[in-house]
This record gives sequence, C-alpha cells and structure tokens, in this order.
Amino acid sequence: MNIECPIPVETDELVRLGHGSGGELSQQLLQKHIFPYFNNPWVAEGRDSSVLPLGDQQLVFTTDSYVVTPLFFPGGDIGKLAVYGTVNDLAMSGARPLYLSCSLILEEGLPMETLDRVMASMGEAAAEVGVALVTGDTKVVERGKGDGLYINTSGIGMLEQPLQIGPGQIQPGDRILLSGDIGRHGMTIMATREGLEFESPLQSDCAPLHGAVAKLLNAGIVVHCLRDLTRGGLATVLVELAESSGYQLLAREDDIPVCTPVQGACEILGLDPLYVANEGRFIAFVPEQDAARAQSILCGCPVSEGCQVIGEVRNVARPQAVLENALGYERLLDRLPGEQLPRIC
Amino acid sequence: MNIECPIPVETDELVRLGHGSGGELSQQLLQKHIFPYFNNPWVAEGRDSSVLPLGDQQLVFTTDSYVVTPLFFPGGDIGKLAVYGTVNDLAMSGARPLYLSCSLILEEGLPMETLDRVMASMGEAAAEVGVALVTGDTKVVERGKGDGLYINTSGIGMLEQPLQIGPGQIQPGDRILLSGDIGRHGMTIMATREGLEFESPLQSDCAPLHGAVAKLLNAGIVVHCLRDLTRGGLATVLVELAESSGYQLLAREDDIPVCTPVQGACEILGLDPLYVANEGRFIAFVPEQDAARAQSILCGCPVSEGCQVIGEVRNVARPQAVLENALGYERLLDRLPGEQLPRIC
Repeated sequence: MNIECPIPVETDELVRLGHGSGGELSQQLLQKHIFPYFNNPWVAEGRDSSVLPLGDQQLVFTTDSYVVTPLFFPGGDIGKLAVYGTVNDLAMSGARPLYLSCSLILEEGLPMETLDRVMASMGEAAAEVGVALVTGDTKVVERGKGDGLYINTSGIGMLEQPLQIGPGQIQPGDRILLSGDIGRHGMTIMATREGLEFESPLQSDCAPLHGAVAKLLNAGIVVHCLRDLTRGGLATVLVELAESSGYQLLAREDDIPVCTPVQGACEILGLDPLYVANEGRFIAFVPEQDAARAQSILCGCPVSEGCQVIGEVRNVARPQAVLENALGYERLLDRLPGEQLPRIC
Repeated sequence: MNIECPIPVETDELVRLGHGSGGELSQQLLQKHIFPYFNNPWVAEGRDSSVLPLGDQQLVFTTDSYVVTPLFFPGGDIGKLAVYGTVNDLAMSGARPLYLSCSLILEEGLPMETLDRVMASMGEAAAEVGVALVTGDTKVVERGKGDGLYINTSGIGMLEQPLQIGPGQIQPGDRILLSGDIGRHGMTIMATREGLEFESPLQSDCAPLHGAVAKLLNAGIVVHCLRDLTRGGLATVLVELAESSGYQLLAREDDIPVCTPVQGACEILGLDPLYVANEGRFIAFVPEQDAARAQSILCGCPVSEGCQVIGEVRNVARPQAVLENALGYERLLDRLPGEQLPRIC
C-alpha cells in the first residue's frame, strides 16, 4: 500500500531575487545550499576574500560577478565597478592588488560599441589602480538568456607584511571609522532606473579603496578589521561583524553622513540609507588610541575625505549591532530581510 | 551645410553567437574589441592561463565562465565542468592546481534542488582533484535575464619547477600526442539537446587532466607545449598553435581516434569531429626521442589511455596546420569559421 509522504518537503523551493541581496536571504542561501558542499577552513570563514599560502608568500584571492543594470550610470559603469569592486575586496584584507581576470558573458545582439565602451572603462580603471588584467574568457548566450553583459573579475593580491585583519581581531574599545557618506551608489542606480531627477545630481561613489588602506597600514595604524559597504549597506555589515566578532557594535546615527540628494531619494522611495549599497565606502576598526590619527589619514585621501568616527565596540552579553539616536535611545539593527534594490552591482 | 558621412561606420555591429565559438569570430572579438584595452605582456600572449610572479613564486592564474546547456548531461554537469575546465587550463601550463573561486549568476526561479545538485557535484569534483574552493560570490538576476545558472571559476596553480611550456617552445621534429578519441563532449551535448539516441550511448569525456600532465613532468619528459581541445576542437587548436609557433603542424587523419557513436552523430548532423569540443582531451608536443615514452606514460592514465602519436612539427615556409589522409594527400586546416555548437561549455 502506498501512503503519501506526510512530511512537507521543500522540493518547490525556488531561487528568489532576495537571495542575491546580500542580506538575510543571501546568508540562508550560502549556509544551506552552498557552503555545506565545500569543506575547507576558508569557506567556513565566509569572507569576501581568502588569505592563502603559496610557497612562503601569503596571497589574497577574491571573485565577484557584476550584473548591474543599467550598464552605465552617473559616476561609473559596469566595467569600472568590476575593477574597483574586486580590488576593494582585496584591499579589505590589507592586500596590495596585483592581478585581475576578466570573464565576460555577452548576450547575442549586444552592440559592439557598448562592449568597447565597457572594455575601455575597465582598461582605464585597471591602469588607474595599477593592476594587470592578465587572463580572461568570453562566452556568448542567446538573446533573452542574458542581459547585455555580465562581467566576472577575480583578483589576486599579496600581503606585503604579516597582517591579521578580520572580524576575529575586533576588540572591545575599538573605534569604528566610516570613510564617507553612505547610499550614493544604490540611490544613483535606483534613480537612474526610475528616471528620477534631483536638484543636486546624484553620483555613484564607486572608487578604489586600496590606496586609502595602504596609507593606514604604512602609517603603522593597527587595523583590526576592514569591510566595504556593498550589498546590504552599512547596517547589514554591522550586523554581520557583530555576530562574527562576538561583540556589540554601537553606531551613532547623527555621526553617519548622508548627503541631501540621497536623503531625499530615500524619502521619496521609502528606503533606509543604512541598507543602501555603496561601492566606494568602508568601515575600519582601530584601537581607541589610533582613532584620531586614522581619521586624519583617511580625511587626507580623496576617496575617504569625509571620514567620521561613528561608533565603538562594546563587550556586553549579546553580540548585536545597535544604532543610537540623537536622544540617546538605542535600537537593534537587523540584516536586510529581503531584497531592496536588485542588481546594484 | 551638413554632408552625410560617406564612410561606412560599424555602429550597427552586434555580438553574435559565433563570437563565443572559440573559432575565427572569437579571435576577431578578442583582437579588435578586448585586447586593445589591456596593455600588458600577458594579454599579448593570448593564452588560457598566465604565469605570474608573486614574490619568488611562479603562480598560474586562469578564469572561465560556464554557460553550458543543458545543465546536466551524460557523463557530467555544469558543476563538474566548472571544476575540471579551470583545473585543465592550469594543468596545460604545467601547474599544480591549488585554489578555485566560484561565482554564481542564478536566474530567479531556479529550483533550489537544481542548485544543490550542481553544488554537490562541484564539491565532489573539487575533492577528487584536490583543489580547495576558497572564495565565491552569488548574484541573482530576474526571470528571463539568465538561463538557470551560470558559473564562473577562476583558478590559481603553482609551478613546482621552473617550466617553459607554451607555443613558443614548439620545435621542428616534435611529435604531437593526442590523449584520446575526440568529439565526445560536444556530440553528447548536441545529442542531448536534439534528443538523439544511439545504440552505444554517448558520454562526455569531461575529466581533470592535471594528473596525467604531472606524470609526464615527473618522469622527466621535456614537454614543449600542452593544449586542451575545448571550443573549436582539435583543428582550431592546431591552427592556433601553427600560427603562434611559426611551424607547420602535420596531423595524420588515420591516427586520430573517433569513436563510433561520435562518428555516427557527426554524420547525421553534418559535423566534422575535428571541430567538435572536448572537455577531457589534450595534445602534447614532445621531442621525438621522448615520444614513445610519453605515449606509454599517458596510456597508463585512465583519462588518456587511448593516447596516440598523431603527427609532427615541420620547419617549412608557412606556418600552417595540415591534415594528411590515408592516401598521403594533404589539406590545410582552418579555424572554425562561425559557430558550430553554441554553449557547449
């Protein structure tokens, strides 16, 4: 006799846009459907780049696929993003970026002129950063099976001194530095898609961060942790780092800069700038005694001239990210629950 | 007065499926629209992987995006292909594969069960090969902007001895070894798509080749050049290597093994197995005095047990790839002109 299985099975579970958000659903996808199949210490760390031994060197390896739409936007394009984004993942480990790969998935019918513009932009960005684009691949898919152009870049960097930079190094008392105002990239993409116009034009913040990081390290600042604020924005990064460090991270709302057009666009669209993606902003955790000097160094670099100390690390019972408002009230931050802005990078 | 421009400009030039074939159009795309924007010695070499200095080590770096359809086929799936294909590009430089990245572009609506099957297959393949999958990325695109699942893997390997393996090392008199029968992967994909069935079932040859290469090198065989026979097949690889080495490459038709089901499928579909893609076959150029020993070593490895000496390198006026038939007549080989089988890898 056949009895129908009474246990609900998840055979109809499907990938949703939110699984690519960088927020809560992304975490579930990784923890449940990807990490379990790859059993090694680097996967367990779940970081954007991995520090690997190669002979007696320490190299850093990272990868990102770029699916941003539209391909061109105020302040940048998919080509620049594909160089800067991967360079930034290397920089967040303290590595000097050396080599990039470039793998293209082109949709049949893409105008060659578009490809040329993107490649020219990648070439310029690579030259600006001082990385060599050394290997590549090109695939073409049929019309309707892509969206013009997707780019993957993987990057190799090198640790020039023995560094331990990561969530495990975060200490109670550390100050949290934010390199500039938040939300420009995500709101630029959104405004471009929606055809919104503002009095002061919005521009993506996309920029390479390795130079600013190198200045911190070369000045002897003891950098405990670095993280760029991409998908999921500042709030999601704070939540992740609170969990992985095991400490409470307190950020003061009033010290987090948001420019007027971003604030305006967020209000119109009902979005919270804390969760909006950036492509040229990062936070740094440094010991209290180094904080003022680190801020001054970062303020001297064009990509981080708006650097602010926004908060600190506390040793309390539960590892949480907390936002304190002007009146001193605290609220817990959560990861981005679903999808806010699909395909922003 | 405005005069219309009398010079035809190529503003309406579009990407075509053939630009992803690995043949003549792919070369044009690279030479005209990609390489000019990246000015460094590795791009000029135009190889599938690049040998790079990192401190006092020599690392090898490669990347490939996988867009094969269907995702599962007899003998393999996109996950296995994404591991083996990138490992093989490293192996063709003589490197020991160490680290892989994995970047996914998922289409909204992909069943999680499909993702799980592919990830499990990648995990198995990585364990089999002995590489660690150390970093990754996941993006999700809207329905109709992808095709289920695209995978990029980039790979890092290490040269364990100072090796010079490449087209520039090919010498007159070298023997050309082919590691087994050709055309299985391409014809398996084609037959699966077209729903063709044969008496003896077709299976992809997809397999990792680093073990066979390591055996050659460890035995002290002086390997001048290695190349895996992917998009464009054996013929396209011979044409490319004739051009880049500057010598004539002669292959004897009767010595090139093609199994019966591949021969049958090619006849039905009007295809030439010389141009059909493989994912587990390679050719090796070795000095005449090493050829018999190299063949015997390769015949001792399961992935290359059907190894044959198929031809030799000649120093004649024009660098061409030539096919000699059973009667001694020679014909010139060309690159694959357009697209034979889109999305075979």
